[in-house]
Amino acid sequence: MKIQMLAYPDMTLLDMVGPLQVWNLWPGGETQLVWKTTEPIKTDSSAVLVPNADFASAWTDPDILFVPGGLDGTFALMNDDEVLGFLKDRGSKAKWITSVCTGALVLGAAGLLKGYKSTTHWSALDALPAFGAEPVKDRWVIDRNRASGGGVTAGIDFGLALMAEVAGEEIARATQLGLEYSPNPPFKSGHPDEAQKETMDLVAQLLAGGGGMAEAVEQASARVMSG
Amino acid sequence: MKIQMLAYPDMTLLDMVGPLQVWNLWPGGETQLVWKTTEPIKTDSSAVLVPNADFASAWTDPDILFVPGGLDGTFALMNDDEVLGFLKDRGSKAKWITSVCTGALVLGAAGLLKGYKSTTHWSALDALPAFGAEPVKDRWVIDRNRASGGGVTAGIDFGLALMAEVAGEEIARATQLGLEYSPNPPFKSGHPDEAQKETMDLVAQLLAGGGGMAEAVEQASARVMSG
Repeated sequence: MKIQMLAYPDMTLLDMVGPLQVWNLWPGGETQLVWKTTEPIKTDSSAVLVPNADFASAWTDPDILFVPGGLDGTFALMNDDEVLGFLKDRGSKAKWITSVCTGALVLGAAGLLKGYKSTTHWSALDALPAFGAEPVKDRWVIDRNRASGGGVTAGIDFGLALMAEVAGEEIARATQLGLEYSPNPPFKSGHPDEAQKETMDLVAQLLAGGGGMAEAVEQASARVMSG
Repeated sequence: MKIQMLAYPDMTLLDMVGPLQVWNLWPGGETQLVWKTTEPIKTDSSAVLVPNADFASAWTDPDILFVPGGLDGTFALMNDDEVLGFLKDRGSKAKWITSVCTGALVLGAAGLLKGYKSTTHWSALDALPAFGAEPVKDRWVIDRNRASGGGVTAGIDFGLALMAEVAGEEIARATQLGLEYSPNPPFKSGHPDEAQKETMDLVAQLLAGGGGMAEAVEQASARVMSG
């Protein structure tokens, strides 16, 4: 089971580490963290990650191709020919094409979501139709061989759901128990449907780094939808 | 707000990345990932992390001291004088002394949990009294200036709860919304209280790498409780 995960500058680390930690218990599973080079990558926090393969040496036939999200670092990928070329190539061979959070926008920019249902971070859901994808407001979405999770922490639910789909419910249940995933959030504030008005105002300030989304979507969409 | 997080070989990456991603939105917060050296660290998955400070250069007066957990790599720390010395020193100055998962056993081995309520991964809860700590079966526990989360994924709930306690509920609510933390686990299987019997058998195999716990606890406990 070859699991190939894109790692890149300013990515939201938890987007990747949720499914990575889940899939780390996949029997016979191997994970590969890939980027253009194997130089250390600064994520959106102080954590620095070292990819274990570059594009040139990355598996050519992964079972799962995965793209995590983020803010401006992610939007930059949406019009990066080297990244899009890599995803198109591996996406044409992968058994599963997957994302968490705004990673879906990168898959969309690579033309990999046309005609598929998908989800993403709540703040980006309206951008999916620009890539011919049908947005679904669920914690995770599986449509044929496309699987996607919502924002950041949804990667854990998504990771378990895909594991159950591919490797069976028993191993997914055991993994959930091993990772003690019986969540108990301190507040009802994880989605706009349940958040207070004041919280919506405050989060808009926190996510201010996401200002580049609209422009990146417009540019990438023009290319994908005319192609 | 100086947040100092111990990073070490074979640690469970999600134990740290849960609170790290939450606290990354702490206004004025700075995180430091520290280890003996700043050489890259292989975690319990294929992910390799680069610490951004060594023990010699690490902040001497952190606001929060944090220790993530794991299996054998964690148990090795429980009798590692260099690590315990570092934790005792920073623990004597930190405003908050915190852990997720079996990180609590390392704090216990450093003598930092004597007389405090604490939680840890469900499989390690019975080991806490060996360090004079009172085990509590909750998702997170705050007792005076000690704060702890349960196993792995509990780090997200723990991170939000401590943020609410120290920085206020408003910012914690906004952070929860930013990280879209409205969990929806695919199964009821995150804790022995809800898991099936067959799942308990299977997880015992998955966590087989945790075989070194009893011996490490016994050795560390003798030192701590006689001191």
